Amino acid sequence: MISRPVSYKFVNFEKGFWKTRQDVNRIETQQAIYKQYSEKGRFPALKLNWRDGDLNRPHIFFDSDVAKWIEGAAYNIRLNGEDGNIGLIDSLVDEIEAGITPEGYFNSYYQTFEPQNRFTVRANHELYCAGHLMEAAVAYADATGNTRLLDLMKRYGDYIRRVFFDEKSAGFQTPGHPEIELALIRLWEYTGEDKWLELSRHFVDTRGKNEEQSAVPWFDDSYCQDRMPVCDEARALGHSVRWGYLYSAAAGLARITKNESLWNACRRVWEDVLKHKMYITGGVGNLRHGEAFGPDYYLPNFEAYAETCASISLAFFASRMTEHEPRGEYADVFELEMYNGILAGISMDGRRFFYENPLRMIPKDQKFLNEVNAMQRPSMRQEHFSCSCCPPNVLRFYAALGGYFYGVGEDENTLFIRHYADCSAEITLGSVRVRLTQETDYPWDGRVRIKIFPVIKTNFTIAVRFPGWCENPSANHEGVLKNGYFYISREWKSGDIIELDFPMDVLEIESNPKVSQNCGCVALKRGPLVYCVEEADNGAELSDLEIRGTPEFEVVWCAELLGGMNTIEFPASRRQSFDALYRVRKDSYVDVRAKAVAYYAWGNRGEGEMAVWLRRS
Amino acid sequence: MISRPVSYKFVNFEKGFWKTRQDVNRIETQQAIYKQYSEKGRFPALKLNWRDGDLNRPHIFFDSDVAKWIEGAAYNIRLNGEDGNIGLIDSLVDEIEAGITPEGYFNSYYQTFEPQNRFTVRANHELYCAGHLMEAAVAYADATGNTRLLDLMKRYGDYIRRVFFDEKSAGFQTPGHPEIELALIRLWEYTGEDKWLELSRHFVDTRGKNEEQSAVPWFDDSYCQDRMPVCDEARALGHSVRWGYLYSAAAGLARITKNESLWNACRRVWEDVLKHKMYITGGVGNLRHGEAFGPDYYLPNFEAYAETCASISLAFFASRMTEHEPRGEYADVFELEMYNGILAGISMDGRRFFYENPLRMIPKDQKFLNEVNAMQRPSMRQEHFSCSCCPPNVLRFYAALGGYFYGVGEDENTLFIRHYADCSAEITLGSVRVRLTQETDYPWDGRVRIKIFPVIKTNFTIAVRFPGWCENPSANHEGVLKNGYFYISREWKSGDIIELDFPMDVLEIESNPKVSQNCGCVALKRGPLVYCVEEADNGAELSDLEIRGTPEFEVVWCAELLGGMNTIEFPASRRQSFDALYRVRKDSYVDVRAKAVAYYAWGNRGEGEMAVWLRRS
Repeated sequence: MISRPVSYKFVNFEKGFWKTRQDVNRIETQQAIYKQYSEKGRFPALKLNWRDGDLNRPHIFFDSDVAKWIEGAAYNIRLNGEDGNIGLIDSLVDEIEAGITPEGYFNSYYQTFEPQNRFTVRANHELYCAGHLMEAAVAYADATGNTRLLDLMKRYGDYIRRVFFDEKSAGFQTPGHPEIELALIRLWEYTGEDKWLELSRHFVDTRGKNEEQSAVPWFDDSYCQDRMPVCDEARALGHSVRWGYLYSAAAGLARITKNESLWNACRRVWEDVLKHKMYITGGVGNLRHGEAFGPDYYLPNFEAYAETCASISLAFFASRMTEHEPRGEYADVFELEMYNGILAGISMDGRRFFYENPLRMIPKDQKFLNEVNAMQRPSMRQEHFSCSCCPPNVLRFYAALGGYFYGVGEDENTLFIRHYADCSAEITLGSVRVRLTQETDYPWDGRVRIKIFPVIKTNFTIAVRFPGWCENPSANHEGVLKNGYFYISREWKSGDIIELDFPMDVLEIESNPKVSQNCGCVALKRGPLVYCVEEADNGAELSDLEIRGTPEFEVVWCAELLGGMNTIEFPASRRQSFDALYRVRKDSYVDVRAKAVAYYAWGNRGEGEMAVWLRRS
Repeated sequence: MISRPVSYKFVNFEKGFWKTRQDVNRIETQQAIYKQYSEKGRFPALKLNWRDGDLNRPHIFFDSDVAKWIEGAAYNIRLNGEDGNIGLIDSLVDEIEAGITPEGYFNSYYQTFEPQNRFTVRANHELYCAGHLMEAAVAYADATGNTRLLDLMKRYGDYIRRVFFDEKSAGFQTPGHPEIELALIRLWEYTGEDKWLELSRHFVDTRGKNEEQSAVPWFDDSYCQDRMPVCDEARALGHSVRWGYLYSAAAGLARITKNESLWNACRRVWEDVLKHKMYITGGVGNLRHGEAFGPDYYLPNFEAYAETCASISLAFFASRMTEHEPRGEYADVFELEMYNGILAGISMDGRRFFYENPLRMIPKDQKFLNEVNAMQRPSMRQEHFSCSCCPPNVLRFYAALGGYFYGVGEDENTLFIRHYADCSAEITLGSVRVRLTQETDYPWDGRVRIKIFPVIKTNFTIAVRFPGWCENPSANHEGVLKNGYFYISREWKSGDIIELDFPMDVLEIESNPKVSQNCGCVALKRGPLVYCVEEADNGAELSDLEIRGTPEFEVVWCAELLGGMNTIEFPASRRQSFDALYRVRKDSYVDVRAKAVAYYAWGNRGEGEMAVWLRRS
């Protein structure tokens, strides 16, 4: 059954885990990025007045950074009041308005440096930037009613449509970096104007023509998702963020246009990633080279690239798949990303970010490799990157998080509850308004109490997701379990309660024997959280920490640790240290008490080793 | 005690392991490289007549390839007769003679393309090529008495001495790629002319001045071994082949010039490598980036670079250390290289080569990474490389292998026996000629029977090496064990026999807990051989193969396998295969019988997985 999401506008986190994270996101992250972008040229570039000798030369992707900040700020304004941010956004819109050409074109890089060359180089992110600006425009209009940016972006959209669709006069046919495809769907959804949907379809359908590539050697067909028509694709290859954005749009189009072959392609690449290419944290795009998907089952942990934006793009894809088909695995992956793959991308204080998300960190090795320029990557989160796409992506993702919690089936009689958190929501099914509250200590405790307040007694179905990680879920109502959702159909009256229990055992997870990197290892999970061990708790040389026999895992609430957290303590062994590089094996171990913390919180206590996968015998 | 090696000329492998390998080396390898170099421009470049449009544009390192082939061929001519090769060499010498400038300069690249720029760019291998030509010249003169190439290279040496030592008129002070330093020592040893020793010292002593580097970004101080004066160095960093050649020369100079501080530096870097940076196979230089040493204890197996030439250079260094001080560890490392690190660099048929020597191969991953240009490396041995330095290095190394077996102490009363193989030798201690034979099935069996035939009854000491890998060595004579050598001092008469027994147990070797890549794993060794498992014997997914409990290792002679070999069979376990990428751990194993083969022979039975390190619980 197709479903529509319930907008973030109608979902409020009033306390608990996501209330805290959203507050940090709004108060710290949004301001931190604003400051960085003011200082690092992102906002100034909009003035189109950069001159030789100035700092922060505008780059082809600068506008997308600006756009994602506006988008995130718009969500926060809507949820928490404007707090001065409308003025900031309006002044940015003023600059875009002043700079936009009579035809409707806007790109701070091209207008500053190469106005004559617009839409000639496929690799140069113009449509990507345009897409992000469109998303920002929709978000801002939807949040505030202010359509000034939206009107500008519709003009830009008309110009793009003319050049790429009507006249086909651009130097290329499809964007080197997909993004506008899903932005156009949002524009269509918001405006109801079919031309945007048509243009999105055009960009998706036109892929796979092996367009002539730029001179950049890594900019090949796989990299920019052009190796075959989307409908024919069966593998996830190339640049993982480009992949995720493209397939988010493709999944949306498959649903909207009822295109079965496009849907089948989405299913195939989805399965390819889930079965062969995703880190246990949700990280995707393991290769540094080309920020790309690697071979099947090739999941190096220290060398993992796993860009934060790639996890976001996979979450987007998952959310679009969910709208097409109620399978729990889509929300499972979304949940995996929101608690792990994406959340690790931002510090607890909200002001520092990972671009790459390894599953193993050995700072001494990383620093050596940085020094000799063999694998450049910070061992700790940074305030800013020269390519600083991830921070505002995190900002906008978490600001609108509530929008992924609920869905309404196309029958207008089914309410999907996909995620669990302390929150309240206002949802309309057909003509019936339903208020709904969740009480839970999720992700620390799997008991969820959902209260339902329909304005009138009504028969409808509530489909609660039974998380894929949970081995023995239960509910206090009769229902039918299908593809990860538990359908409870009855007459609901105000004050009805659904009690769910998702026991959160500590699970030892193994990976497929084909994943050479993780053979002989397990990762610990509890509920939706992946755990890791850190040097701060366990000393260094974490690869040697070994779980043996049948250990008792003790879940310990640590209120003072990393914002409050259930840690996992367990007995483990280490080898006794010795001096030689090699020696004849001695079966000599030291018993230790090990402690694991949630992966999302790693690297918040100074520099140190971290490991997700632990030896198991 | 300082010692001198006994020349390869006086050591003959009459049967057994090295007889076979040397025959392959002479008959197959030498010819295969000759053919490749004829077709791929190495030999033709000497004519200095390459023109635009011709194939195989001469490269700055071409002359070194030619030189190493001549050197290897010279050894083989000496040992096995000329077989037409003198004519081949003479025609190459004709071309060098025709091309050498009046001043004595010869470099096929510079004379073809940039005659005006000689000795201006440090990175461009001129002195490296010159060094290899000098080594070839000494080898050829020593083998045949023909001094024509030697005379040319002495002219070249005089010119180099003038430019770099007397006038200091070159564009740089020391070679970007060390090699000439050890070549000049050989030239001094052969001619007795002190000017060559002085020039070698000059090049070594002048290092560490942080000479201005070329524009190539990776060509930095570490890369070209110029970060500090050699005497001050304590770490092995940068390009591993450059390192090995430089320290081979430094160790030689330390001995010859009795330079204690140079010796101490050699000891420090030696220990740094042995304690922190050497693969169990003897491989060094683990980083692809810069073909360089990586961080301490950072020894990735699949990604290992471990160039064949780097192992050769470490063997050279070990041999020079041995001449300075009779510690068994030098010959242990040499033995490790000759049976593993270097020998894996060449196919059993002698015609194909590895440039890089990983300790784990997963062809499907390698091919994917090749395809997307993320880590270019063949998964099987190749006939030739565009940078084809390793093949002729292997050729010359194994042709002269006998020269590393014996040493004579400076007291002229101590005979060092460093290595074991079926062979006979003629050695002169002071004025006494001693003939000596070894009978052994080494490396398959650790029993060695050495017969001594002094021309007259004489008191002297025979110091036999007790290999470091052997836990319970024994000899049939009284003696004194010191630093890995067992000194037997007595009157020896013709027909005396030393019986040595080095029990070859199958050893499970663990690496230091700091080596994250090998935690929870062991490698199997037996005698001097490192073993590995291959897909041909064990199926794929070798990382999942696990040794549990107290396994019985069965040593099985397989006469038909890979030239005849002791394999190791043992019980192991594998997980049952499953479809998901991740699942809750199940303790479900399948018992299998695993089989390991000697690492040097891997990759000779078609493409397939290989692993040195095996899971151990």
